[in-house]
Amino acid sequence: MAGGATTPELVAAVSNAGGLGMIAGAYLTADQIADSLSRVRTLTSKPFGINLFAGGYASHQRDPVPDPSFALNLLSGIHSEMGLPAPTLPDPIADPFADQLAAILADPPPIFSFTFGIPDRHALDALARHDILTIGTATTVHEGKLLEAAGVDAIVAQGSEAGAHRGTFAAPFASAMIGTMALVPQVVDAVGVPVIASGGIADGRGIIAALALGATAVQMGTAFLTCTESGTTPVHKQAIRSTPAELTTVTRAFSGRPARGIENDYLRAWYAQEERALPFPLQNELTRPMRSAASRRGDTRYLSLWCGQAGPLARDLSATDLMRQLVSEMRDTQERLHGEG
Amino acid sequence: MAGGATTPELVAAVSNAGGLGMIAGAYLTADQIADSLSRVRTLTSKPFGINLFAGGYASHQRDPVPDPSFALNLLSGIHSEMGLPAPTLPDPIADPFADQLAAILADPPPIFSFTFGIPDRHALDALARHDILTIGTATTVHEGKLLEAAGVDAIVAQGSEAGAHRGTFAAPFASAMIGTMALVPQVVDAVGVPVIASGGIADGRGIIAALALGATAVQMGTAFLTCTESGTTPVHKQAIRSTPAELTTVTRAFSGRPARGIENDYLRAWYAQEERALPFPLQNELTRPMRSAASRRGDTRYLSLWCGQAGPLARDLSATDLMRQLVSEMRDTQERLHGEG
Repeated sequence: MAGGATTPELVAAVSNAGGLGMIAGAYLTADQIADSLSRVRTLTSKPFGINLFAGGYASHQRDPVPDPSFALNLLSGIHSEMGLPAPTLPDPIADPFADQLAAILADPPPIFSFTFGIPDRHALDALARHDILTIGTATTVHEGKLLEAAGVDAIVAQGSEAGAHRGTFAAPFASAMIGTMALVPQVVDAVGVPVIASGGIADGRGIIAALALGATAVQMGTAFLTCTESGTTPVHKQAIRSTPAELTTVTRAFSGRPARGIENDYLRAWYAQEERALPFPLQNELTRPMRSAASRRGDTRYLSLWCGQAGPLARDLSATDLMRQLVSEMRDTQERLHGEG
Repeated sequence: MAGGATTPELVAAVSNAGGLGMIAGAYLTADQIADSLSRVRTLTSKPFGINLFAGGYASHQRDPVPDPSFALNLLSGIHSEMGLPAPTLPDPIADPFADQLAAILADPPPIFSFTFGIPDRHALDALARHDILTIGTATTVHEGKLLEAAGVDAIVAQGSEAGAHRGTFAAPFASAMIGTMALVPQVVDAVGVPVIASGGIADGRGIIAALALGATAVQMGTAFLTCTESGTTPVHKQAIRSTPAELTTVTRAFSGRPARGIENDYLRAWYAQEERALPFPLQNELTRPMRSAASRRGDTRYLSLWCGQAGPLARDLSATDLMRQLVSEMRDTQERLHGEG
């Protein structure tokens, strides 16, 4: 889930209501992770977790970076319009994973989840020694098998409907766009560990549907982005609830890695030019000043409006009320199915 | 569903087992439709239906056709390798819908379904006068609302997982790739008529999941393509069951309209060149000799291997046994959910 969205209040509210609140740790420093873990602990005594990007940094230091002139020209125009200093090409960025993991091991939460790849043997062993359960992210059956072979405790099957970053790590991104309805039962059949369904699930109907497919649990992102406790900007929350699914798109224009968000002026400027985006995380660094300024000003033209294809099902509720509502919808759905059956 | 797959035996077996068998009528002449309707009636006394393309022919006569040299060169090489006469550019093709509809009205089946658009008022009124229930195909909520406003009796919500042609008619194809999990509940909330879920559903788990999302029924294509009674070639059936979902792709290379099939040599030759395909139905006509020869020879390199993203869940069973199996899996899924609930 997007960086600033998972406030300690949101994470704790979800856990206190019987869910598993997750801290989005990928863009946090080790100090910020330590602070987040400690703040969540003051707000809940229930299990919670933290998510990191495992991998995704190596290629931008290894592979040739494309000519940045398109990206720099486009951002120069936007910066100028917004009154920001001219954009500069970021230096290579060290993978923060080792430092982030150290902060997690220093104050172990019950759950650690990851996406973009598989942590190395050393990291997985350290997590196991600290009794931290691990959850990996798969977008294909093959990735699910790789995660199981690495020894994860559970697997998120991320369908093509999901908002924000694709977790794909062992397939071309464009081909690993498998819908949740098709992906979940095939991953369930292929692995022996519990499967958590993700992508397009935003209400109790979707939760029961995912359980029917064989999932043990669901992961919901977009549905919680619009909650009161979420750190998402009000204009982003409004856009999620009001934008038809066909106006979301998977784009590399914000971070350099494919992620699903709502179309806006910035994305349209990249139309048919995405191969000219810098690799992750350079593109993410390059677009940060624009995104930060747009966030402060509530300017949806230049914000990364992450959103899954079930955005219009998201609600304006507190996380506690949403959790209660989901349980009630699950019961209604069960009763309706039972009546039909 | 693909043209030759829906033999009268397959349609009747599905209806006799309690499903609703559908004749794929889009590529049939009026005489062939009359023959199909009559042959299905001799095999079943249960309800069945027929599907046509409604629209999709107009644009190739209205819009400029792109330079055909890429398509002709590519097919020349394949024809030469296969020992076929050189390919020729097809003439504009008249929309067969009016003649096909006349054949249907002359011997009315209980159900008529359509995709690619909405039949005009005259056609819908004629269907209603003949007591034929109509089912339209939507790939977005907006298309669902347009179909309801036109007066259809039910709507197929076609998720991005679905095999073969996209039904999209009021959105850009690429953006109307909404997963079944996200699409179905949003269409259910937006319209008052029954919604039939389609895309990625190939077993009893998927059927119960679709019902949980609010669908009244499901439409399954790929799962029946592999049945004994299906006219699909044996190599195509084998490819459906053995190909991972990430090796299917949505392509214009066979017919000129986006459709999901399994990657093969022919599709790879079109990689990044799809805008040079002729518009539907010219591209379909142009590729027909290649596809026919490949079908006779069981040559998967040049066949249109239509397949949804749940292909690996499809089975080698008679339609009667598959129907029995689906009902049994639905019951198992219900019991599992009930135990969890």
